[in-house]
Amino acid sequence: MNEGLPSWNNGRAKESILKFIARVTAEGEPDFVPANERVAVFDNDGTLWCEKPNYPQLDFLVTELRLRVGERSEMAERPEYAAILAGDRAAMAELGLERIGLALLELFAKLTPEEFEERARDFIMNATHPKLGAPYARAVYRPMLELLDFLRAHEFAAFIVSGGGTEFVRAVSRELYGVNSECVVGTLVAYEFVRRDGEPVLLRTARAHGEVNEGPAKVSHIRTQLGRRPIFAAGNSAGDREMLEYAAAAPGRGMALLVDHDDSEREYAYASEAGSFTADEPILETAQGLGWTVVSIKNDWATVFG
Amino acid sequence: MNEGLPSWNNGRAKESILKFIARVTAEGEPDFVPANERVAVFDNDGTLWCEKPNYPQLDFLVTELRLRVGERSEMAERPEYAAILAGDRAAMAELGLERIGLALLELFAKLTPEEFEERARDFIMNATHPKLGAPYARAVYRPMLELLDFLRAHEFAAFIVSGGGTEFVRAVSRELYGVNSECVVGTLVAYEFVRRDGEPVLLRTARAHGEVNEGPAKVSHIRTQLGRRPIFAAGNSAGDREMLEYAAAAPGRGMALLVDHDDSEREYAYASEAGSFTADEPILETAQGLGWTVVSIKNDWATVFG
Repeated sequence: MNEGLPSWNNGRAKESILKFIARVTAEGEPDFVPANERVAVFDNDGTLWCEKPNYPQLDFLVTELRLRVGERSEMAERPEYAAILAGDRAAMAELGLERIGLALLELFAKLTPEEFEERARDFIMNATHPKLGAPYARAVYRPMLELLDFLRAHEFAAFIVSGGGTEFVRAVSRELYGVNSECVVGTLVAYEFVRRDGEPVLLRTARAHGEVNEGPAKVSHIRTQLGRRPIFAAGNSAGDREMLEYAAAAPGRGMALLVDHDDSEREYAYASEAGSFTADEPILETAQGLGWTVVSIKNDWATVFG
Repeated sequence: MNEGLPSWNNGRAKESILKFIARVTAEGEPDFVPANERVAVFDNDGTLWCEKPNYPQLDFLVTELRLRVGERSEMAERPEYAAILAGDRAAMAELGLERIGLALLELFAKLTPEEFEERARDFIMNATHPKLGAPYARAVYRPMLELLDFLRAHEFAAFIVSGGGTEFVRAVSRELYGVNSECVVGTLVAYEFVRRDGEPVLLRTARAHGEVNEGPAKVSHIRTQLGRRPIFAAGNSAGDREMLEYAAAAPGRGMALLVDHDDSEREYAYASEAGSFTADEPILETAQGLGWTVVSIKNDWATVFG
């Protein structure tokens, strides 16, 4: 059973994973979970792939914005776009995340979902990640890919539950993670159904569809979109707190795993910021208080990327 | 290949299905569709199971309402509940579907999704369908089950896209149709995340989450929840029109299939009502005009139930 996680060093994190899997798959034992209730959810940014120096999606949005401004320079005058292009965090904070977000949604309004996905995919597969000097697609954590496969080998269904845009993740979820589109839950954009020359067409709008997928909303959306309760959850930030708590509290006791970014050499060292959705307590302290499994990138992962 | 549809009589409907499958699965041919793009969507009421004399979900709601009124008789005074219990369609129309729907949602507020699913499942598995004299679970169309299996045997992913409550369908989707929860798209209720004695719990609210899943909303929700474009769609009513159009217009040409209820003996004979979402044109005329495949229950199905 050990063979499935070659990039994991021996230690408490790996041991907890192996024990958990053994416990829920041992037929006839009290904690046995039937295969169709073996549900695992993974945050994406900072959990499955690197979220530094910026969220990949932010780099994508800035790239797209620059392209549009190149075509229509007057766009650069708009305060939201000016703040983003200047990387002016104070100005962005003053405008507010919602206004910034909606301005960015406008960049893709009237595109079909297929057109959007093609751009997103192109960026992730071809644009260069600043630290890796390789495409963003290479900024995926190898130990987590092994964990996905390991869980699936034990008849788990694996889902991604990201705070990022659903379509952005879906554009590559199958290729990078082996996760189908319907198994990706994220923040949604609204669509409109129109007829163009008599043909039915679905187009993106500049409106959000429902809440941002962070904090307690992750738990609600797991229910509305997936309809199954996770017994395993992996995350790295305050925005994952409720999802991790909910998985850990599953009947028979689930498992929560928190990735701690403590490796400045091979990846990054940072304490995940408290989100706007949660208490001020750092997520690492929450993890320790609630007995979650903490993964130290430095100590638990023999390989990070590649 | 013919062997997969034993309950289908030979005729144009069966022939179109076989031709479509042959066309999209023939490698090297112009209309070949790779396996991960073979997406089929099915309406539920009147398409996968019988929707007469009432939607099964309505019978479930009335049953639940009677139970509650038995415990708290003053509930019967409330105009929405009084109208439902009396089967007074005029009163219901006057109150409006939205108000009626919200009053019914209140019956299940504060239940966990697991508690709700258990009640729904119990009803579908045990309550007696008025025409069949057997549980509602037996009111599933056997030819459509064969079609689901036939498509899956040809590497299609099959999804249910119902106007009904998502949880109601999910309660039995795996058991009746072999369709997982995350592959069911319906009308959604909102949830709230709370802590009870320190334990994280998800509860139903009395609010809807987003639009009713009918008409153009079916197409939008296929995108938001599933993220894949169907190349095959089956439905039976005006509420399926846009979904059928959208599937039929898929690149390389998809297939739309409309179930026509024309068998008063073995099932029911009725023209599907025009929904509130669509033009007044009867859906059967739309089907003929757009060249969809029409399935006559009377002529095309050798067996209906069982």
